Amino acid sequence: MKLIRFGQPELEKPGVLIDDVRYDVSALVRDYDEQFFAQGGLLQLAKVVEQQLAGKLPVVPDSVRLGSPVARPSKLVCVGLNYADHARETDATPPAEPVLFLKSTTAIVGPHDDIVIPKNSVKTDWEVELAVVIGKRASYVSEADAPGYIAGYVLHNDVSEREFQLERGGTWDKGKGCDTFAPLGPYLATADELPDLDNLRLWLSVNGQLMQDGTTAELIFRIPYLISYISQFMTLLPGDVISTGTPAGVGLGLKPPVYLQPGDVVELGIDGLGTSRQVVKAYGQD
Amino acid sequence: MKLIRFGQPELEKPGVLIDDVRYDVSALVRDYDEQFFAQGGLLQLAKVVEQQLAGKLPVVPDSVRLGSPVARPSKLVCVGLNYADHARETDATPPAEPVLFLKSTTAIVGPHDDIVIPKNSVKTDWEVELAVVIGKRASYVSEADAPGYIAGYVLHNDVSEREFQLERGGTWDKGKGCDTFAPLGPYLATADELPDLDNLRLWLSVNGQLMQDGTTAELIFRIPYLISYISQFMTLLPGDVISTGTPAGVGLGLKPPVYLQPGDVVELGIDGLGTSRQVVKAYGQD
Repeated sequence: MKLIRFGQPELEKPGVLIDDVRYDVSALVRDYDEQFFAQGGLLQLAKVVEQQLAGKLPVVPDSVRLGSPVARPSKLVCVGLNYADHARETDATPPAEPVLFLKSTTAIVGPHDDIVIPKNSVKTDWEVELAVVIGKRASYVSEADAPGYIAGYVLHNDVSEREFQLERGGTWDKGKGCDTFAPLGPYLATADELPDLDNLRLWLSVNGQLMQDGTTAELIFRIPYLISYISQFMTLLPGDVISTGTPAGVGLGLKPPVYLQPGDVVELGIDGLGTSRQVVKAYGQD
Repeated sequence: MKLIRFGQPELEKPGVLIDDVRYDVSALVRDYDEQFFAQGGLLQLAKVVEQQLAGKLPVVPDSVRLGSPVARPSKLVCVGLNYADHARETDATPPAEPVLFLKSTTAIVGPHDDIVIPKNSVKTDWEVELAVVIGKRASYVSEADAPGYIAGYVLHNDVSEREFQLERGGTWDKGKGCDTFAPLGPYLATADELPDLDNLRLWLSVNGQLMQDGTTAELIFRIPYLISYISQFMTLLPGDVISTGTPAGVGLGLKPPVYLQPGDVVELGIDGLGTSRQVVKAYGQD
């Protein structure tokens, strides 16, 4: 099943995507939030959708904006330097255990919304990532049990301001949570839709030029391990999002580095998770 | 006005504290959450409470558990090394600009709840902190305007696992967001209750021995500056919490370092914000 949320920012309604047609399920589901996942909403929705498929669900026009396919989670946990080639390009040593940071959830926007370069930013960069949506409360979960805690997967552009992240003192969080820095979507694909997680292509282009082109085969720490690992340090709630890191090809890694400018168009995609497209704007630009 | 939340975990109801008596306002207010602060709930509540004071509000027994005085915020932003004496004791250089990190909101508990030492933890430490609750959406706020964005203040024990924070690779977030690591309360004091923020005593004891005894006069970066600064990197939402750093006297700073053990009793307080008390437990201990 593919879940979408559609409508104006902060007023999104839940929907499903079937054979590229968007259906409104807001009469059946309040939102794709913590309560939905915690209360077995995915299973119930799958049954209802199956029964009502014969044209009974309202269709949503393709012109309607898509929001993030999940409501604002309690947290967006990110994994840094999780592809060996990306660690190399940023002159970092591949980590002995996962590097974690938290991204402010106010950064979350829809998959095709604008990326806004923050005031005083000179180093806004891109990062295509596979993100995991948690399906049930996870604390001290074993790697073997971890797959049972996954609700689904979503495409994420982990937009990053490198000066804020690396040159302004303290942790990375300062350069990761700016508004619009987490386009999520177009849809959440439930776990059953991606049976082979270990060989998905992920790519990102800027103005049509391919900048990142990797595969999840290159992940240093794989998803079940990451869920188990993170759950040793904090409890993951239903609907929480884990972003699993980016392959080589970010702006910081180019010689000389290249950063996003107003007017740039960023497109990205992952096998089975669709594509997203963001136009880059300056702060305050219409 | 002093706001409290009372009842069982995740089922807390809103109340107010007047002359040390707890009153139930759940008939008037759903919760102290983003919506409450965003919609001017504080002003409305103050008016209603004033009118109904003549014994019409139900009294809550002192035996009822207190929860965090604010509902789970979108984020808990913390400032590191913000007292010069604490920076010195941890062998850190006082920072040129604020050090920021995010604490998982799943760490939030009530003021008198147990602190649970995580599995495999050997360095669980204490930090008394003054925390600020945001009253309205704040993005690119000036220092001069920042006081207008404050709903109130709350006592916070920024419990920290030093090995997770400093020796496990990556950012501090790993050692800050464990379950029970953010006791908040006993109450939120609205901004008008603390007119002089710059000279509040804050202290913390372990098993009756005073470990931290500082004053907000020693803050390197003061609250209006912090709000302005953080709002350059991320949008603060109504109900969000900023914790402003801890003075000297944490376990990591002692020679040799001292960390919390099961059975320890931590007590802390700040002028005007009351006191809290946590008993330390091992993971899985009743």
